[in-house]
Amino acid sequence: MLSVLEQVRAGALSPAEAAGQLSDLPYAEVAHAVGSTMIDHHRELRTGMPELVFGAGKTPEQIAGALRELARRAGGAIATRVDPGKAEALRALVPEIVFHELARIVVLGAPGPRPPAAPISVVCAGTSDLPVAEEAALIAEFLGARVIRISDVGVAGIHRLLARLDAIREAAIVVAVAGMEAALPSVLGGLVDRPLIAVPTSVGYGVSLDGLVALAAMLASCALGITVVNIDNGVGAAVAAVRMARLAGAR
Amino acid sequence: MLSVLEQVRAGALSPAEAAGQLSDLPYAEVAHAVGSTMIDHHRELRTGMPELVFGAGKTPEQIAGALRELARRAGGAIATRVDPGKAEALRALVPEIVFHELARIVVLGAPGPRPPAAPISVVCAGTSDLPVAEEAALIAEFLGARVIRISDVGVAGIHRLLARLDAIREAAIVVAVAGMEAALPSVLGGLVDRPLIAVPTSVGYGVSLDGLVALAAMLASCALGITVVNIDNGVGAAVAAVRMARLAGAR
Amino acid sequence: MLSVLEQVRAGALSPAEAAGQLSDLPYAEVAHAVGSTMIDHHRELRTGMPELVFGAGKTPEQIAGALRELARRAGGAIATRVDPGKAEALRALVPEIVFHELARIVVLGAPGPRPPAAPISVVCAGTSDLPVAEEAALIAEFLGARVIRISDVGVAGIHRLLARLDAIREAAIVVAVAGMEAALPSVLGGLVDRPLIAVPTSVGYGVSLDGLVALAAMLASCALGITVVNIDNGVGAAVAAVRMARLAGAR
Amino acid sequence: MLSVLEQVRAGALSPAEAAGQLSDLPYAEVAHAVGSTMIDHHRELRTGMPELVFGAGKTPEQIAGALRELARRAGGAIATRVDPGKAEALRALVPEIVFHELARIVVLGAPGPRPPAAPISVVCAGTSDLPVAEEAALIAEFLGARVIRISDVGVAGIHRLLARLDAIREAAIVVAVAGMEAALPSVLGGLVDRPLIAVPTSVGYGVSLDGLVALAAMLASCALGITVVNIDNGVGAAVAAVRMARLAGAR
Amino acid sequence: MLSVLEQVRAGALSPAEAAGQLSDLPYAEVAHAVGSTMIDHHRELRTGMPELVFGAGKTPEQIAGALRELARRAGGAIATRVDPGKAEALRALVPEIVFHELARIVVLGAPGPRPPAAPISVVCAGTSDLPVAEEAALIAEFLGARVIRISDVGVAGIHRLLARLDAIREAAIVVAVAGMEAALPSVLGGLVDRPLIAVPTSVGYGVSLDGLVALAAMLASCALGITVVNIDNGVGAAVAAVRMARLAGAR
Amino acid sequence: MLSVLEQVRAGALSPAEAAGQLSDLPYAEVAHAVGSTMIDHHRELRTGMPELVFGAGKTPEQIAGALRELARRAGGAIATRVDPGKAEALRALVPEIVFHELARIVVLGAPGPRPPAAPISVVCAGTSDLPVAEEAALIAEFLGARVIRISDVGVAGIHRLLARLDAIREAAIVVAVAGMEAALPSVLGGLVDRPLIAVPTSVGYGVSLDGLVALAAMLASCALGITVVNIDNGVGAAVAAVRMARLAGAR
Amino acid sequence: MLSVLEQVRAGALSPAEAAGQLSDLPYAEVAHAVGSTMIDHHRELRTGMPELVFGAGKTPEQIAGALRELARRAGGAIATRVDPGKAEALRALVPEIVFHELARIVVLGAPGPRPPAAPISVVCAGTSDLPVAEEAALIAEFLGARVIRISDVGVAGIHRLLARLDAIREAAIVVAVAGMEAALPSVLGGLVDRPLIAVPTSVGYGVSLDGLVALAAMLASCALGITVVNIDNGVGAAVAAVRMARLAGAR
Amino acid sequence: MLSVLEQVRAGALSPAEAAGQLSDLPYAEVAHAVGSTMIDHHRELRTGMPELVFGAGKTPEQIAGALRELARRAGGAIATRVDPGKAEALRALVPEIVFHELARIVVLGAPGPRPPAAPISVVCAGTSDLPVAEEAALIAEFLGARVIRISDVGVAGIHRLLARLDAIREAAIVVAVAGMEAALPSVLGGLVDRPLIAVPTSVGYGVSLDGLVALAAMLASCALGITVVNIDNGVGAAVAAVRMARLAGAR
Repeated sequence: MLSVLEQVRAGALSPAEAAGQLSDLPYAEVAHAVGSTMIDHHRELRTGMPELVFGAGKTPEQIAGALRELARRAGGAIATRVDPGKAEALRALVPEIVFHELARIVVLGAPGPRPPAAPISVVCAGTSDLPVAEEAALIAEFLGARVIRISDVGVAGIHRLLARLDAIREAAIVVAVAGMEAALPSVLGGLVDRPLIAVPTSVGYGVSLDGLVALAAMLASCALGITVVNIDNGVGAAVAAVRMARLAGAR
Repeated sequence: MLSVLEQVRAGALSPAEAAGQLSDLPYAEVAHAVGSTMIDHHRELRTGMPELVFGAGKTPEQIAGALRELARRAGGAIATRVDPGKAEALRALVPEIVFHELARIVVLGAPGPRPPAAPISVVCAGTSDLPVAEEAALIAEFLGARVIRISDVGVAGIHRLLARLDAIREAAIVVAVAGMEAALPSVLGGLVDRPLIAVPTSVGYGVSLDGLVALAAMLASCALGITVVNIDNGVGAAVAAVRMARLAGAR
Repeated sequence: MLSVLEQVRAGALSPAEAAGQLSDLPYAEVAHAVGSTMIDHHRELRTGMPELVFGAGKTPEQIAGALRELARRAGGAIATRVDPGKAEALRALVPEIVFHELARIVVLGAPGPRPPAAPISVVCAGTSDLPVAEEAALIAEFLGARVIRISDVGVAGIHRLLARLDAIREAAIVVAVAGMEAALPSVLGGLVDRPLIAVPTSVGYGVSLDGLVALAAMLASCALGITVVNIDNGVGAAVAAVRMARLAGAR
Repeated sequence: MLSVLEQVRAGALSPAEAAGQLSDLPYAEVAHAVGSTMIDHHRELRTGMPELVFGAGKTPEQIAGALRELARRAGGAIATRVDPGKAEALRALVPEIVFHELARIVVLGAPGPRPPAAPISVVCAGTSDLPVAEEAALIAEFLGARVIRISDVGVAGIHRLLARLDAIREAAIVVAVAGMEAALPSVLGGLVDRPLIAVPTSVGYGVSLDGLVALAAMLASCALGITVVNIDNGVGAAVAAVRMARLAGAR
Repeated sequence: MLSVLEQVRAGALSPAEAAGQLSDLPYAEVAHAVGSTMIDHHRELRTGMPELVFGAGKTPEQIAGALRELARRAGGAIATRVDPGKAEALRALVPEIVFHELARIVVLGAPGPRPPAAPISVVCAGTSDLPVAEEAALIAEFLGARVIRISDVGVAGIHRLLARLDAIREAAIVVAVAGMEAALPSVLGGLVDRPLIAVPTSVGYGVSLDGLVALAAMLASCALGITVVNIDNGVGAAVAAVRMARLAGAR
Repeated sequence: MLSVLEQVRAGALSPAEAAGQLSDLPYAEVAHAVGSTMIDHHRELRTGMPELVFGAGKTPEQIAGALRELARRAGGAIATRVDPGKAEALRALVPEIVFHELARIVVLGAPGPRPPAAPISVVCAGTSDLPVAEEAALIAEFLGARVIRISDVGVAGIHRLLARLDAIREAAIVVAVAGMEAALPSVLGGLVDRPLIAVPTSVGYGVSLDGLVALAAMLASCALGITVVNIDNGVGAAVAAVRMARLAGAR
Repeated sequence: MLSVLEQVRAGALSPAEAAGQLSDLPYAEVAHAVGSTMIDHHRELRTGMPELVFGAGKTPEQIAGALRELARRAGGAIATRVDPGKAEALRALVPEIVFHELARIVVLGAPGPRPPAAPISVVCAGTSDLPVAEEAALIAEFLGARVIRISDVGVAGIHRLLARLDAIREAAIVVAVAGMEAALPSVLGGLVDRPLIAVPTSVGYGVSLDGLVALAAMLASCALGITVVNIDNGVGAAVAAVRMARLAGAR
Repeated sequence: MLSVLEQVRAGALSPAEAAGQLSDLPYAEVAHAVGSTMIDHHRELRTGMPELVFGAGKTPEQIAGALRELARRAGGAIATRVDPGKAEALRALVPEIVFHELARIVVLGAPGPRPPAAPISVVCAGTSDLPVAEEAALIAEFLGARVIRISDVGVAGIHRLLARLDAIREAAIVVAVAGMEAALPSVLGGLVDRPLIAVPTSVGYGVSLDGLVALAAMLASCALGITVVNIDNGVGAAVAAVRMARLAGAR
């Protein structure tokens, strides 16, 4: 591209001719020019979200390296799906990490300032759904949102859910985490007017099919306005919830 | 068998020898001796339930013949899965039938006296689940139980369900009919202490998979003590409910 | 409840005793007191959304009745999944309806004022995804949001999608509609920082399994922050998008 | 609520006005008033069943704590899905437990008096179905029902089943446990007039699909009146059977 | 090949050299030499079975042509999956056909002599399985076996099956046809010592999945020695049964 | 029954009356008389096959006990699905066992005389199918049939299969064992006129789905007359093959 | 972009500064500059393939318009999935079309010159696979390749396949079309050294699952080097084959 | 065969008679003559590809033996699916092996000369797809093709892919490796005119179903001309790609 621009400067090419030539550059070069500097510096700007380290399938050394590099640039970094054994090995490498065992999350440093975001409720049907709920809650907090945690409000004890409605409604967005038959979002969908993200979990046995039944039940819900993420995908739910919470800004 | 018994009478065989010989009769003969007279006369005695005519896949002539034969012996007879066109053709053959269009059921005559049975609630999540619910209700009534019908109490409007709890609890057995994500039985299971039969329906679209999601969600329910029948199987639910209602007897 | 309250007034019960007694009222009565007046009058207040008429499986008469009743109360009403034949029959009953054939939607009257909502992009991969996209767009408009329609930007011609990015980013929320392998949301998810709702369609043949492959691919997307609704569920996507758009308010 | 009631007492509000105001209380408060005291004290009253500890996924410490708390209040407590290793660790914490290895069940203390319940047959197709059958039997006994155990009566040796019919019929409810092709309930369904709960087990290999074939075969049974619970769900079958057995009362 | 052989005759090639050269002929030529004359003349000799015309997806003209050609060579011919409308059109073309409506089979002429074959029982669980059973029976008869038909011996009325055991055992091979939960082969497998071919049918509804449940239940049967054919595949069962019956020869 | 017979002898009952009374005896008693002595002594007579010990899920002690009891009565006994570790433990208990590691089979003693049976070919597509093929072969030999083993004749090297056709045709029955796409039975089905039993194996990866693809491909085969057993079910194939081989008798 | 280039010309910006600024242009503008002129004019250049009209779901008018526009620009055009009724309506609009009924393809005009391409064999297992095979053949010819058609060489008559090997090998690429158990590609894969594209068809019934079994069997094939397209996707196979054939150029 | 040829030489048979006799030889003999010498010596000639050792399920001793035998005949040999532990054991047996840990591949010696082949791009969506991509790359190189490796160009960062287009287009064939929603081939399919082989990987969790979603998404791709291999099947993709690359010859 530079050589074309040099020719323009030298008057050998008119701006219009140059525009034509640049248009004819193969995709890759144009994209390269745009993209190469964006990969590292512009990523967060482009999607509004920092990179998160997915810890499953990575060695402690790889996770440590990624956390350090991200924290160096941004102040804070976070890794998900880190089991206790790996967390211990990680602490030997990076002593200053904080490990959240229930959520299997490791945090290094404190994130810099984030765009303002409205609060998010993370509502959880049973105690066995807690790891996924807590993963969602911690990621949302890391991304700058205040989180209201509400747990053990499964539909087989509907009064417990009704008793917590006010707390749930304090937030601008609701994340509902449930396994097995996953009826919680359907009930909630008829009680609140907020955006509602449903997270199926792989909790259950027999025909629960590792969360597929919960997933399908949430998609087939009779309550309109529910959106769904993949099974056990607390991270995805948190990122989606924060995208929404930033629309509402600080409250 | 008679010839063995004749020999016993004649003293040619001792009772013990005869018992041995009879034991050696091949299965079929013994079963034949027991079974042949049971087929027609003892069926209702054996399982406690009269025969029902399954109308799908039968011609109007076949249904008419079956209904007449059963009504002749028992006073009343019933056929299921009869669509309006077939019902009309049937009426030309047997003018005295009564056709319940919503439930796709045809009744001929009035059933004789039934064993006493406690009342049954048939609870229905949405209006599109009504045909299956009404099928269950009519069959249960034909089998001698009083039925309490409660409809349109889907979980996305939970207050409507709570408002009807007293009526639901009037019955000794609850049949809960629901499609889509089928959360109704889970919610009910935490609110009543009665036997609860869940009936999934094929209502819904997209990933509801012709009722498979509702079925699986009911089986995976977090509320203990729920039992489930096949998709759209109002008849099976009614027969099971009446078997239970007879345990409680009249109330 | 009234009798308890009468006793309080008469001084026969202290307020604390009365609170205890009221707490012991069975669920149904309490809920009844709360719920019975809410059913009709409070529904829109509770979930923020008016009722929509689901036209599939309803007769023209039933749709006409529902539309008239809703329009009488709210100024405007809308019915979905209305095929051309049914629309024609409907027009004979209610001449003033407007029929949107592509989206299979019928509108009666104009909705009253809605809460302010930010604009929504409805992005569509192929021309065969248009009916679902248009259903989403019309519902969102009926609910009070401005909609930016962008179509035919499938990933097999990636430059067409890149060329429309500015238009897509004009909106606060993006709804991405795609069938077959449904790669559009993954590509978009890496290019925009808005909430992104993916709608799988049943377009395709062979192993596309009536939209299940598109649905699964969207759920399994490598781009974080995408949420998904059921197959062909343009209505659900629109309601969810408007819930989000209201967070952002007017822009 | 109290402040409303105080005003009624003071005559500042008429009972009718107060009823209206109370009706307008948000769900949560009303439910809170009703529900908060019910959570612990009223649970068994509401559903008629005590809480059971689901041992899978819990540590020995958590199980011990739950058992002790429940036993303290109710005299006896029970935990399911406890493998031998966990049972041993549990005994170190709570020496007075009784461990039923085949059923993977731990019992602490003796349950208090239960409502009268008719006897239940637990019928088992093969020896590999015994753990699920025994789980059902022990839970039913814990809930106060007498259990008649009948095992190894698979349909490939039909005479063994016929030879035990009298014993099966002694009970008011039949629980039939079977894996593989799960034909036992179909055969039984034609021979007894009792409520019949079918429990599929994950026994088998090849295309038995971890119990899905058994489950589906039971749902598709040609014998009317069978209801089904989830795969390996002995607990659910027992709770459902006891709900039914209490209808019949003591016999 | 001839030119190689000519050279051998002329002494230009030794037999060993020729054998080498012939070995090097490409597959196609060798196979062509062997195969080309076998295609028409040797087919029945090779597999022992005449060609059957599969009528589904063929026009009446195509079926007529195939039947005539086969009957001309072999005396008799048979076509399967012919619905009544197509049969009528066929009769207009070939008036001498015989149509078996229940089995959807058309026969032209009488087959020539067949190898001796032992008798085959075709046992059928319910009346709705009859079309597949009769297809199997007619094909087996066309192939030269005597067939014993036994119907309506479903396992929910086990005495009817036991009463027919002697008749079933008259045959050397048993074909068991059943839909829904398909328990018949399991029960039969424990009662007879003959080869037993199970044929699942697509009869049933709900979770019977168009015969997949019946198929899977038969494969997962606890009774050893059962083999299975595809859903509704009466023809395949008959061909397999006759292959077996010919082993036993005439009896 | 004896008391009825005593009354016949005493002339207190006519034989006809007695027959009536005996017919009314509940199933269980009649079956008991027939069945109780059959359970142990008559089993082999009834189905023609001795009991086989299924080793998976049994302890070495249980297997040892079962083998000894069966061998004591019948001369020889066999256990399947015994892995090397279990076999070693078993040898410590019963030193005279013979362990076939590839087939995971243990034999104790030598079976007594068997009915004459024609030879069986066990044909195997790939070396990884050998364990299942050898299981089938050893069981068939234990049941008294001569077995011809042919291996590594997968269809991707079709000449190897053609080269072994004569050997395959030496047998009266062909068992074809194959995994992955399982095309072997289709090719064989067009080349031999024998009964052909196809055994799918769980060999393969990716979309082979643990043998389900092989199973389905065999069922869907275009070659008529193939019957299929469950995945990896060498035992079932052997029992079925021997049932057929006995029809042909000694050759 | 032009304004940036003007500034370069005027010396207000150095080429390096300009390169930086251009890199910062949002994606859409760059892509627009590159992409906008490519949409219509460059499509065939970019992917090497002209546009094909997918006729299913389009009206005759839409197909006619698309064919005319494409033919005007390129000389010839082609539409797929056109059933006979639609073809007739199309002929009324565009009389000069040629309709290939078996392949459901309509051609308008003659394509211009194509890049040189080696010949392609289209091999077909059964006569019912012919429509898909012919679709592939006609599209390949339209794209400029010579096609060798070989049909009815299913593996159940393996000699027919062997007899045609020379003809198959005449081509540089082999397309193998098969339904049911789809063993043809596995057998061919061991006999030829060409690229081999397998096309599953939805032919078959019972457990063939609308082509899913054929698809899975092809993917699981034991013969290395086979690639697969979607069910019934003759068009995709042809485009892939021609891409390969152009690598080999004219032969 | 020799004896027939001897008779020809002796003049006892005319060449025509001999041809007839040879044609009548059973398949097996002819095939034997052709096939027996082909098995070892002609395999590579027939399919153009050497044998590869599939290491999964083989002992180190078996792999060592196979590698040595193949390397002795051909100079070099290769084994796939060898995990690190097995590789270490293998090195103890054959010290001169080279182990590629990422690709789980072991190479012994150097392959002899290969037919000329055009270069192949192996493009990889995410770092977790690298093992499968590297397996494909190493196998392709072993078979004689030059490989261009391009990684981490997932569609959620589309600019990275566009930036590498020139490198991708350097090759004659593109292999695209991707898991999760697997959108990479669809995007690439619209950007390049080369044959494109898509390889789904089992990377992902939740509803990615061990690669089935990636597989299905690739098959359902809206971009024409893509062919697909089984999940994680890097070997199959490499063999197919080399077959194509040899068509193009050296470049």
